[in-house]
Amino acid sequence: MNRRFHWKRLETFCEKLFTKAGLPENDAKIVAESLVQADLQGTDSHGVVRADIYLRRIQAGMINRDEEMEVHYDGPVILLDGKNHIGSVVGNRALELAIEATKQHGTASVGVKGSNHFGTCSYFLQKAIKENIIMIIVSNASQTMPPTGGIRPFLGTNPLSIGAPAGRYAPFILDMATSVVARGKIISAAQKGKSIPKEWAIDKFGNPTTVAEDALEGSVLPMAGPKGYAISMFIDILSGVLTGAGFGRYVNNMYENWEDPQNVGHFYIGIEISKFMPIEEFKNRIDQYFDEIKREPKAPNVEEILIPGEIEHRCRIKKMTHGIELPPKVEDELKRWGEYYEIDIHDALLRTDEIVDEGEESKNAFR
Amino acid sequence: MNRRFHWKRLETFCEKLFTKAGLPENDAKIVAESLVQADLQGTDSHGVVRADIYLRRIQAGMINRDEEMEVHYDGPVILLDGKNHIGSVVGNRALELAIEATKQHGTASVGVKGSNHFGTCSYFLQKAIKENIIMIIVSNASQTMPPTGGIRPFLGTNPLSIGAPAGRYAPFILDMATSVVARGKIISAAQKGKSIPKEWAIDKFGNPTTVAEDALEGSVLPMAGPKGYAISMFIDILSGVLTGAGFGRYVNNMYENWEDPQNVGHFYIGIEISKFMPIEEFKNRIDQYFDEIKREPKAPNVEEILIPGEIEHRCRIKKMTHGIELPPKVEDELKRWGEYYEIDIHDALLRTDEIVDEGEESKNAFR
Repeated sequence: MNRRFHWKRLETFCEKLFTKAGLPENDAKIVAESLVQADLQGTDSHGVVRADIYLRRIQAGMINRDEEMEVHYDGPVILLDGKNHIGSVVGNRALELAIEATKQHGTASVGVKGSNHFGTCSYFLQKAIKENIIMIIVSNASQTMPPTGGIRPFLGTNPLSIGAPAGRYAPFILDMATSVVARGKIISAAQKGKSIPKEWAIDKFGNPTTVAEDALEGSVLPMAGPKGYAISMFIDILSGVLTGAGFGRYVNNMYENWEDPQNVGHFYIGIEISKFMPIEEFKNRIDQYFDEIKREPKAPNVEEILIPGEIEHRCRIKKMTHGIELPPKVEDELKRWGEYYEIDIHDALLRTDEIVDEGEESKNAFR
Repeated sequence: MNRRFHWKRLETFCEKLFTKAGLPENDAKIVAESLVQADLQGTDSHGVVRADIYLRRIQAGMINRDEEMEVHYDGPVILLDGKNHIGSVVGNRALELAIEATKQHGTASVGVKGSNHFGTCSYFLQKAIKENIIMIIVSNASQTMPPTGGIRPFLGTNPLSIGAPAGRYAPFILDMATSVVARGKIISAAQKGKSIPKEWAIDKFGNPTTVAEDALEGSVLPMAGPKGYAISMFIDILSGVLTGAGFGRYVNNMYENWEDPQNVGHFYIGIEISKFMPIEEFKNRIDQYFDEIKREPKAPNVEEILIPGEIEHRCRIKKMTHGIELPPKVEDELKRWGEYYEIDIHDALLRTDEIVDEGEESKNAFR
């Protein structure tokens, strides 16, 4: 039975966990916010489910908590050495640098090395959008996808993300793995004992498979065949080869490697809208664009044409009111960390007086 | 019977056509070079097959040959108004501006409005690569793809392209339409009377189709489903919404609209490699990356794992020696334009003494 949590109190709970684990308060806040924002928008694979591995790596001394990050400025080009701090904190620092440099110069490129798994890109994009900056964020990741023609993981599912503000609409937010599906979906299918479509992955011998467990031992496939392979490779070139971070096999797996820092690389490109036209004009134009797309004739059984980011935006609004459901396994993990650090997870549950009626059935999800 | 042409003399022939059509000599040279480079690398859909439509539009007064392009500088951010000059010339000007600004500032963003169909992006990328600049180039295009859930063309097959130099290897060049396949492949199937895979396109009622003619009346589908839709849309936002160019339905079709300028938009982002590390170090790292990918174990029946751009690079070398084959239809079109402007296309054919032996059969392709 999934129970429901209040997003803000779940965030506070996680913040306390990370503070107890030894992160500075501000860092703990960023990590907690990044995780809960992912759950809120429905990207459960990058939500509080990741708190466990983050905490285990901090506890094992795999994350730097002391030495300062290093920033190398050169006009609108910045290189940030994350010095193996926790990923969302490094990512957030890069974002701040990118926003600042974009405001100063009109555009900026920020490369990042020495980072770790940094959660969803959309967490950072949201903040850039509030500053009326169009931002592109990419990151490499540990090996899960073969090159086209290969049979074993070489590339990560290196995410590509892009955000732009709108006026009457929710912002445009594209945030995608360059695989056919996120590896998290295969993990989820394996946990539920479900089969997967044969286009998703190959087994360790290079054969297409519908068995989720075999896929996890094999490789997720790039989206769109060689096109996805090429995009993923480019992201690795920008995030890894260019910045001095790991690339290909030198981006270490956070679940498997307990010896070496991950050395993940990211890359941020910022573009200030007002350099091209007044922001209100841009927002009118993008609203018109969305209006026109949404008014297009629809295929049979399609109720609505959606803008990238719209599903997540609606999900966020809904879950802010109705709570975030966590599967028992995730709740148990968090509960155990809570017990270890003497923080009560029950404080984070949605209270009876906060329940919004969705019919009898849904009430079972509350305590 | 396809005959073979010498790439440089074919370029000269095209250059003369465009000069006679009224383009300044330098512009004619750029257009001709862009077309022949596409043929050389095997991207026939963007090669001299396009000379006919470009010439017809010039002749019909649809292309500006007088009023100067306008450049609005603001540090590393530049807006170029192409003033409806021919696409490859506008694109090339944007490239020069992007290279110059990237060298000056380390990174640059160049938006372009008032342009036309500008050929392959890889033509421009090649030049940026020679300057040791990593470049991203995107462009919108007239409507051919539906949004996810739609049934008729709304977005263009908006290309995404990215280039980076290498050391021992050919440069990394990704240059792709955001559709499942380039629309040119469906045109080609229709001309040959061949059927197409049902994943490629929908007919005008929104149903999947294997009939190339029905697909041409319907819509090419975005690559990777909603992911391709989102990427294509983002390219339209950057190239069209942000720059002030057309977007969505306001990018006019060069084959169908003989009233209005196309108002295509492009966007260039340049990143100077030496701002991050010495160029030799970067080239060593990218060579190592390519080495390692190419050494990966291969799937059954795969002879070699390829780097994006490698096929085109080899094709270029081969065709520089063996000539560019043109289908009779394309040769006829060029021949007619040659007759019209009194330029002999036969001068562009590969001469007997230039033939490299490839066996008896291939000799039939020569005059």
